[in-house]
Amino acid sequence: MEKKMKKLREKLGEVYDLRNAVALLWWDQATYMPPEGAAARGRQLSTLQRLAHEKFTDPTVGDLLENLRTYEGELPYDSDESALIRVTRREYEREIRKPSRFVAEFSAHASESHNAWSRARPENDFAAMRPYLEKTLDLSRQLAGFFPGYDHIADPLIAESDYGMTAASVKTVFSELREHLVPLVQQITEQPPVDDSCLRQPFGVAEQLDFSKEVIQRFGYDFRRGRQDLTAHPFMTKFSWGDVRITTRVKENDLRDPLFSTLHEAGHGLYEQGIVRELEGTPLGQGTSEGLHESQSRLWKNLVGRSRPMWRFFYPRLQNIFPDQLGSVPLEEFYRAINKVERSLIRTDADEATYDLHVIMRFDFELDLLEGKLEVRDLPDAWRERMESDLGVVPPDDRDGVLQDIHWYDGTVGGMFQGYTLGNIMGAQFHGAALREHPGIPEEIGAGEFGTLLAWLRENIYCHGAKYTTNEVLERATGSTLSVEPYVEYLRSKFGEIYIPS
Amino acid sequence: MEKKMKKLREKLGEVYDLRNAVALLWWDQATYMPPEGAAARGRQLSTLQRLAHEKFTDPTVGDLLENLRTYEGELPYDSDESALIRVTRREYEREIRKPSRFVAEFSAHASESHNAWSRARPENDFAAMRPYLEKTLDLSRQLAGFFPGYDHIADPLIAESDYGMTAASVKTVFSELREHLVPLVQQITEQPPVDDSCLRQPFGVAEQLDFSKEVIQRFGYDFRRGRQDLTAHPFMTKFSWGDVRITTRVKENDLRDPLFSTLHEAGHGLYEQGIVRELEGTPLGQGTSEGLHESQSRLWKNLVGRSRPMWRFFYPRLQNIFPDQLGSVPLEEFYRAINKVERSLIRTDADEATYDLHVIMRFDFELDLLEGKLEVRDLPDAWRERMESDLGVVPPDDRDGVLQDIHWYDGTVGGMFQGYTLGNIMGAQFHGAALREHPGIPEEIGAGEFGTLLAWLRENIYCHGAKYTTNEVLERATGSTLSVEPYVEYLRSKFGEIYIPS
Repeated sequence: MEKKMKKLREKLGEVYDLRNAVALLWWDQATYMPPEGAAARGRQLSTLQRLAHEKFTDPTVGDLLENLRTYEGELPYDSDESALIRVTRREYEREIRKPSRFVAEFSAHASESHNAWSRARPENDFAAMRPYLEKTLDLSRQLAGFFPGYDHIADPLIAESDYGMTAASVKTVFSELREHLVPLVQQITEQPPVDDSCLRQPFGVAEQLDFSKEVIQRFGYDFRRGRQDLTAHPFMTKFSWGDVRITTRVKENDLRDPLFSTLHEAGHGLYEQGIVRELEGTPLGQGTSEGLHESQSRLWKNLVGRSRPMWRFFYPRLQNIFPDQLGSVPLEEFYRAINKVERSLIRTDADEATYDLHVIMRFDFELDLLEGKLEVRDLPDAWRERMESDLGVVPPDDRDGVLQDIHWYDGTVGGMFQGYTLGNIMGAQFHGAALREHPGIPEEIGAGEFGTLLAWLRENIYCHGAKYTTNEVLERATGSTLSVEPYVEYLRSKFGEIYIPS
Repeated sequence: MEKKMKKLREKLGEVYDLRNAVALLWWDQATYMPPEGAAARGRQLSTLQRLAHEKFTDPTVGDLLENLRTYEGELPYDSDESALIRVTRREYEREIRKPSRFVAEFSAHASESHNAWSRARPENDFAAMRPYLEKTLDLSRQLAGFFPGYDHIADPLIAESDYGMTAASVKTVFSELREHLVPLVQQITEQPPVDDSCLRQPFGVAEQLDFSKEVIQRFGYDFRRGRQDLTAHPFMTKFSWGDVRITTRVKENDLRDPLFSTLHEAGHGLYEQGIVRELEGTPLGQGTSEGLHESQSRLWKNLVGRSRPMWRFFYPRLQNIFPDQLGSVPLEEFYRAINKVERSLIRTDADEATYDLHVIMRFDFELDLLEGKLEVRDLPDAWRERMESDLGVVPPDDRDGVLQDIHWYDGTVGGMFQGYTLGNIMGAQFHGAALREHPGIPEEIGAGEFGTLLAWLRENIYCHGAKYTTNEVLERATGSTLSVEPYVEYLRSKFGEIYIPS
């Protein structure tokens, strides 16, 4: 069996070398690639993705997994070897259903669509994107079609990013959350608006970057195993245990960028940097799901990064860096400013209270599009209507409406958005569990120490990589299943205190 | 036949997508990769190189080439299709002799050796590199062994980089050149030394970089299809027709870096950017040999970049950028400084008159090592002796001796160095031919116009990529075979004028 395990690891290593090269090609495209490199890059991405898929779905992998079945049964469920066989089999059984030619076609289409979107969004040209999006929808349906027997056509797409979740289970959770959020937002926005002008001043870009680097280094992000570069759309990517990179963007007139986008991506990075090295080069060597990943980006960005203790420590340092802009702004005013709630157009800029309404809307649209209840051509109107009813604002154009997110123009229609809100919900659960075990965490954070929190997250979540499913991690780490309660409680208490006079 | 050609192009496209991903992995390693990324990167490079080799040597490629033999015979020799079949076959017949496992082993060893060298060179630790170099020598011999029937064991290694050349043919040319160089250098170094203190002043790094960018843009390097980044060891690399990158290094106290390293790499870049797009993704879509490539880097760096006309145009601009340092330095003093000849230790820093003596020495060592006349353990001593006899200086340590060049620590022993001097020789031949056809070139350059020269080089050399062999390009462009005469004449006339009072 040892020989077979070795062989399996070798095969997987090859697949991950290819996948990691794909990740680098993608990172380079988003950071440094000169404009005329785009055409060939799309082809390179498509070829390598297809090869990785071919290698992974090679029948010898299937044979190895088959031959290892008895051995797996003899191993304890928690052992790395058992998990390796189990998770590889799960992924293998999913991937063999997709023809390699389909994988290459989808990848090539995604690259073209991505490039078209890069031009169409600034030009507010939804008409240009319509044929791309229609093809994406068609390909997404084809993809789902490789998994007959689903309850909902979105289920196979959701399982790609959030294994264990279905359209039905997500819908239940989301509608429960929405019932709490709509009145909460209503209540908040009836109050006088918070003044956030202190954030909207000119701030030196280099100083902003240096400060956000300092913060994430204190969080525990390791620059010997990572780096930060500039992009239009921030992301985290990983090429190996020793190379987990983040990107950010800067605005000269708004302190929120790059600060919060850096904290967000650093959260993803801390997760990936925390996975034990032994799992590298296998399906276990990565975060277990989109939702769990988002729980970490949003935990570090919001539950930590927008908290009072954090800024008790960091605000005096920030004032030192920007004395003219912040020297006379009290901590409390700054704290309220970074937590300002408002009905706004852009998901990624949205505050904690309204953010999930953006996500739930997109999730519903994905289901409607896949079900055929909504046509691509009717999407811009549907977008405007739903924005008005849910958020009370209407985008003046498609640029800040249906064209704002890259997801549908670079991925599937279906399974792209639920992870954000699942992440918010789980983030609050994890945070609560960590604080129950270590009630001193907020005080430590107030002293600039993040070690206890990071150690808890590493031990309970990060180190395992994809060894356990989302639900398993949740239950092991918090003792309970997915529950919106801690999240709603967190939002109520935080924004109640800021907005609702007692 | 059309269908077979299409199939061949498809197969080759896949190989080049992999090879270009390898190039990106390498570029990233040398520019932005965080330190802890090194271990996995070596593995990724090795895997992708092996896969590219497997794909290229797939029997279906051989079958296609076989089936296309008659068709090839019917095509004119100069047609792209005929060249594609011919050059692919030549490369295929070479590559099928190398087992894929050997290719992967060599690549993995080269990565390890490269990383070891990065540590050993600053520590002046040749002992640490000895086992690596011994293994490299062993692997180089094995590689040559896949090509039985050679006259000299170095021949297959030389053919890898300079197809058409052999140990014997290179030796003949090099000894002829050496007979001219040794007395020339002797004569020059008997003269009072040139004062180059104007170059050794503090110069702002950003200004140096901006200026060298301005120069290469005027040369014709296209930044929409390229970019420049910083590295320890400058190089040029290509990921596609639309993405040809160069790197450089900076020194705050020496104007020569990054200026001349940028011009050098830009010369390589101009060659690659000048290859017609139709050849992309095939063995034709690259420079035809190391020697021809070096002819272009050295032509732009030296024959153009260290010429009087060039600086008649650029020097006033440079003085404007560095008024304190150069404002009162006359053009003639600057010109003599950038052409200073001296007996020095480092090949890459050597002037035009002594440079080839460094190269010829390394070439001779490669032959001696391969033949078994010289042991790796005796190399440092042999290095010191030969430096003393050829260049009249002895390196105080191995760091600036046998450890200075990366080539043997990252590639083969054999075939690594001859290209530089072949390039110098051919560069002078090409330059001479261009000037015969367009005698106004120097005057144009004096006015900051490089278009006529670039157009001649594009038309006669660059556009063809690897369609023709080095010797074919040489004969087509200059009307003659390889000849040291124009180069010797150029050196004599240039340095005679600078050094030998008339």
